[in-house]
Amino acid sequence: MDNSKIGLHISGKFNKELEDMRDRVLIMGGLVEQQIKRAVTAFSTGDLQMAEQVIKIDNEVDALEIAIDRECMEILALRQPAAFDLRLLITAIKIVIELERIGDLAERIAEMAIQLSETDSSNRHKHYFELVHMADLVENMLHGALNVFARMKVEDVTLIIKLDENVDREYASIIRQLVTQMMEDSRNITRMLDVLWVARALERIGDRACNICEHLVYMVKGQDVRHLTQAELKKR
Amino acid sequence: MDNSKIGLHISGKFNKELEDMRDRVLIMGGLVEQQIKRAVTAFSTGDLQMAEQVIKIDNEVDALEIAIDRECMEILALRQPAAFDLRLLITAIKIVIELERIGDLAERIAEMAIQLSETDSSNRHKHYFELVHMADLVENMLHGALNVFARMKVEDVTLIIKLDENVDREYASIIRQLVTQMMEDSRNITRMLDVLWVARALERIGDRACNICEHLVYMVKGQDVRHLTQAELKKR
Repeated sequence: MDNSKIGLHISGKFNKELEDMRDRVLIMGGLVEQQIKRAVTAFSTGDLQMAEQVIKIDNEVDALEIAIDRECMEILALRQPAAFDLRLLITAIKIVIELERIGDLAERIAEMAIQLSETDSSNRHKHYFELVHMADLVENMLHGALNVFARMKVEDVTLIIKLDENVDREYASIIRQLVTQMMEDSRNITRMLDVLWVARALERIGDRACNICEHLVYMVKGQDVRHLTQAELKKR
Repeated sequence: MDNSKIGLHISGKFNKELEDMRDRVLIMGGLVEQQIKRAVTAFSTGDLQMAEQVIKIDNEVDALEIAIDRECMEILALRQPAAFDLRLLITAIKIVIELERIGDLAERIAEMAIQLSETDSSNRHKHYFELVHMADLVENMLHGALNVFARMKVEDVTLIIKLDENVDREYASIIRQLVTQMMEDSRNITRMLDVLWVARALERIGDRACNICEHLVYMVKGQDVRHLTQAELKKR
């Protein structure tokens, strides 16, 4: 399946509205990708300027969410679309909600980086590699999901959902290490709980990227796959 | 504002479709409320039968999510609504997503209850009261939000969002206690992390009830309040 579905309307203006809307979703997605990367770097390195950038970008992300949502509602009211166009618009509304919440998670990681820099400068690099690696994974998932939305190549969804298994494995491994370190030295506990929180936020970002994929399958195929198991999904 | 908005359509059948859809959202909400209550009781008391009920209800919740979503899409395609009706349908689509995810959180609390019963029977009642109290709070929030949807009395939203401050306070207090106990005895750490996870899940349920409220304000007033601060929201 390709983009040609969007090009079939008699009204050129309607085409353009749908394309503009889709472009804006992709711009919003690009901003959120930047947020993830920078938030984890800020948390790991203590780079406060970078943390503040993440918070600043979040304002843009929030504004885009409202703008795209409004745009979709206007198109729905004025064009009264059916079939694929209707699913495209409803899916865009769902995707921007997921993106905005991913942005919020990144923002909270950045806020935590700022808060930690005020209280604690030791131990900073201890979980750098694990968290950065996990962040790379979930960022790839999100990037892949946005590519599916851009190109409507829904076959790639399987690969992205497969990546989520790696994320879950990384997450479980980080938790195990953290628990061991907390047991070894109870002075570590508060700091380790912060690392745990960041790991969990990344895991949730991975889940939200999967949610986006599920919305996209529904958009393209008109099938609701939200409550299929991963194994059932892979067979499709 | 009252329900009369729904009663103004020339087509009695369209009215009935909207009312049926709304009734089903409320049924779904009622099931999710049951899930929260039972999941926390199962976690606190080790009642495995109750935990299994939560998981069973989740299947119904998932099926309702898909059915309501489909119903809304069909009404959108066939009736091509505008203004309030369009916002009502889009809001219902957003609300069922929130409800389904709240149900998932409750299900995971129940699964944790089952898992814990296999490994650990000590310490069970230590945080019973705090968690049950937090569960009561978020359940009240959700109940309030569903009432707003049923009666369209959007003024009540302020009270519900106010309750979320109590939830956040309870959550912070539980975290402090858990950290102290982990520091006192490192053998507690794994068990305490589970309690922490449940507390966080409840806090997220509170957040999702707030999300529902924000969607409802948008539905009734046509205003997007998602990125206003709580103080700004209360002024409205």
